[in-house]
Amino acid sequence: MAVMTTRRAIVRRGVNAPDDLAVESPLVLGLDGEAVATLMRTPGHDLELAAGWLTVESGVRRPDDIIQLRSCREDDTDRVHLTLGPGVEPPRPRAFVTSAACGVCSADVLDLAPLRRAEPHTPGWTVAGDVIAGLPDALRERQRAFSKTGGLHAAALARADGSLISAFEDVGRHNAVDKVVGRALLDGLLPATDHLLVVSGRVSFEIVQKAVAAGVAGIVAVSAPSSLAVDLAREYGLLLAGMVRGGSLNVYAEADLVT
Amino acid sequence: MAVMTTRRAIVRRGVNAPDDLAVESPLVLGLDGEAVATLMRTPGHDLELAAGWLTVESGVRRPDDIIQLRSCREDDTDRVHLTLGPGVEPPRPRAFVTSAACGVCSADVLDLAPLRRAEPHTPGWTVAGDVIAGLPDALRERQRAFSKTGGLHAAALARADGSLISAFEDVGRHNAVDKVVGRALLDGLLPATDHLLVVSGRVSFEIVQKAVAAGVAGIVAVSAPSSLAVDLAREYGLLLAGMVRGGSLNVYAEADLVT
Repeated sequence: MAVMTTRRAIVRRGVNAPDDLAVESPLVLGLDGEAVATLMRTPGHDLELAAGWLTVESGVRRPDDIIQLRSCREDDTDRVHLTLGPGVEPPRPRAFVTSAACGVCSADVLDLAPLRRAEPHTPGWTVAGDVIAGLPDALRERQRAFSKTGGLHAAALARADGSLISAFEDVGRHNAVDKVVGRALLDGLLPATDHLLVVSGRVSFEIVQKAVAAGVAGIVAVSAPSSLAVDLAREYGLLLAGMVRGGSLNVYAEADLVT
Repeated sequence: MAVMTTRRAIVRRGVNAPDDLAVESPLVLGLDGEAVATLMRTPGHDLELAAGWLTVESGVRRPDDIIQLRSCREDDTDRVHLTLGPGVEPPRPRAFVTSAACGVCSADVLDLAPLRRAEPHTPGWTVAGDVIAGLPDALRERQRAFSKTGGLHAAALARADGSLISAFEDVGRHNAVDKVVGRALLDGLLPATDHLLVVSGRVSFEIVQKAVAAGVAGIVAVSAPSSLAVDLAREYGLLLAGMVRGGSLNVYAEADLVT
């Protein structure tokens, strides 16, 4: 079990006391021996994180598109070594990229066509509004590290009956989603056309991008989406529910999937 | 005045109603005619955003390090055209970078030495604990767009007496900080060694990096810092207060600056 929280001596209104902090440290992804990305992440489920990152950033679509997925610690740095199957498109280079949505290059990413699945959801799939309203609480129950630190985001994959398949925490909300997507990839669940992606925070463009790559039927978020997130969810036929709290919720896209 | 919020028809628990959303859209930064970055940001204060981004990512340290800073709209895309002064180090290339901390490449960025200022704060500088405790409320009063959308982060530059010099909102917390840093750069306030950076969210590694680049005396955050943020604040001598809410607060670094 990786260490997700740690302690530092701090001053709490004048009284010295220890405090739990969310751990943030670098993970280097190496493809065929060459570093292709450095993710600042909370340790734990590094293989899921790497697999999910590949699902969004490369041509990986099925578990056997990844031939090698191995974590190690070298030179005092956590690393995951990757090898892709023959013919699988490698991650795209991204020079000079910075964004609110984390690592977005508009030229590449505003074209989501390579990520598009045949069906945005299983034909006839629906979800009850009451199920959506209950998902944030279900996610919160799985946020063990958050309750200690107050500093971690979480994401989960949920069925339409409200049960959670997997849930992960990370100091970065994008990483939490990547861990969910990676676990689903490794379990052969993608495209997850009858599942929902649940996130503890806001929905920016890049969260929708990851949801499209995972092929989920929709996104349920505790906080608000951006304008671009709503526009893209509509374009790609994803259910998008936000501000899901205290029993109320807004549906920003594909409201006819909610019963 | 740029449009920071927008409306989409949504379904609110079965009743169709309009809703205000935080706008997210791309801004392309061009250096000497060549695109060097695409930022997914909330429109408004694009020049501040570009100037702040340069302060962290390049050798820009003073207002006249930037010779040209001009916004325009071309090909249906918002752009800022930049020219740096002779001898000013251009932004560093960053291939294959993704992170919780948004665009961090450990090789480059874990070495903050190029950003280090001579003094972490003005000699003798201190701040009252009560001032720190009041800064989140002062920031919230300036968050006009947040109260409409619930989807925007904010950041501000504050004096030790608790007054705010400037405050900005953005869908990305890193962008909000860049806007603050850019405004301070353009006003000749950097290094801001007797000022505090106030942020509405969590403190990850990259927020500390930006604070070091701006030369502020410390960071005050509504939410929790990560372990790496605390370690770096201590290494660089920055005051770091977090979980500042309801009159209580934790001081994670340089507690002796708090009176």
